[in-house]
Amino acid sequence: MNSRPGKETPPILYRDRVRAEWVDYNGHMSEAYYVLVFGYATDAFYDLIGMDDGYRRRAARSVYTLESHISYLMEIDEGGELVVRSQVLGADRKRVRLFHSMHHGEHGDLLATSELMLLHVDTTGPRATPFAPEIQARLDTIVEAHAELPRPSQAGRSIQLN
Amino acid sequence: MNSRPGKETPPILYRDRVRAEWVDYNGHMSEAYYVLVFGYATDAFYDLIGMDDGYRRRAARSVYTLESHISYLMEIDEGGELVVRSQVLGADRKRVRLFHSMHHGEHGDLLATSELMLLHVDTTGPRATPFAPEIQARLDTIVEAHAELPRPSQAGRSIQLN
Repeated sequence: MNSRPGKETPPILYRDRVRAEWVDYNGHMSEAYYVLVFGYATDAFYDLIGMDDGYRRRAARSVYTLESHISYLMEIDEGGELVVRSQVLGADRKRVRLFHSMHHGEHGDLLATSELMLLHVDTTGPRATPFAPEIQARLDTIVEAHAELPRPSQAGRSIQLN
Repeated sequence: MNSRPGKETPPILYRDRVRAEWVDYNGHMSEAYYVLVFGYATDAFYDLIGMDDGYRRRAARSVYTLESHISYLMEIDEGGELVVRSQVLGADRKRVRLFHSMHHGEHGDLLATSELMLLHVDTTGPRATPFAPEIQARLDTIVEAHAELPRPSQAGRSIQLN
């Protein structure tokens, strides 16, 4: 990630366009496909910290999504440009708290956010296991840089009627 | 919904089988498709309260998902049977708090849960608007019946490292 302390915007990890098979009968992108796009951004994050597909197979390691919290803020039509920015809100030896924000690629409006809890796993178990030192070092560098970013207002929310 | 007070299990609103296009290279259902399946269960809930597709078009009303919180608990392979049970945790004049639990259709294991905040909308605005009286009456009946069910342990969660 190209964030530096003091920079106000998290880095862009993924760009796409709303595909025909992602829209409902009203021509708007459906809920599940927001999650698909956020998943592609999460894959880009894994590449960034050195946990790309090749590493995961060789090392018998993977990262599981334990939980996600999605806020749907605005609709987008077929063909619309999507940009996903990603901020690490924290990490420990086995887990990462990652926050994606999806914006319209033309006018920049915030369309949706996704907050994720990710768990590092030894796939031979499968069981939770600490990150390798070189992965942990990359994560710690990102956590430190992103601590300077504003905290998203959607982070840490729970679903409540009142 | 066929829940009656004292009945311990929320009703089944949706059944399916994991389709080939829903699985990743490991043969497990991908995150976005859990959300797709939960979306089908939400559609079944709309039918149940009388807000089916025909009503929504005629009345120029719709229901938007504002937020969802998903807990991924267990993997399921291509071809596996899915059953979704649905519990209404609360409602007011414009909103419903809905909780889905996805189980394996054969051995019953809990695979994932999704908690949703849904907003009733006048699509001519679009703007939030109260439910029609007959819809509100159906909702209130379900809320009352489901108040007797155990509260799911995943309800009301937020994403936190500690």
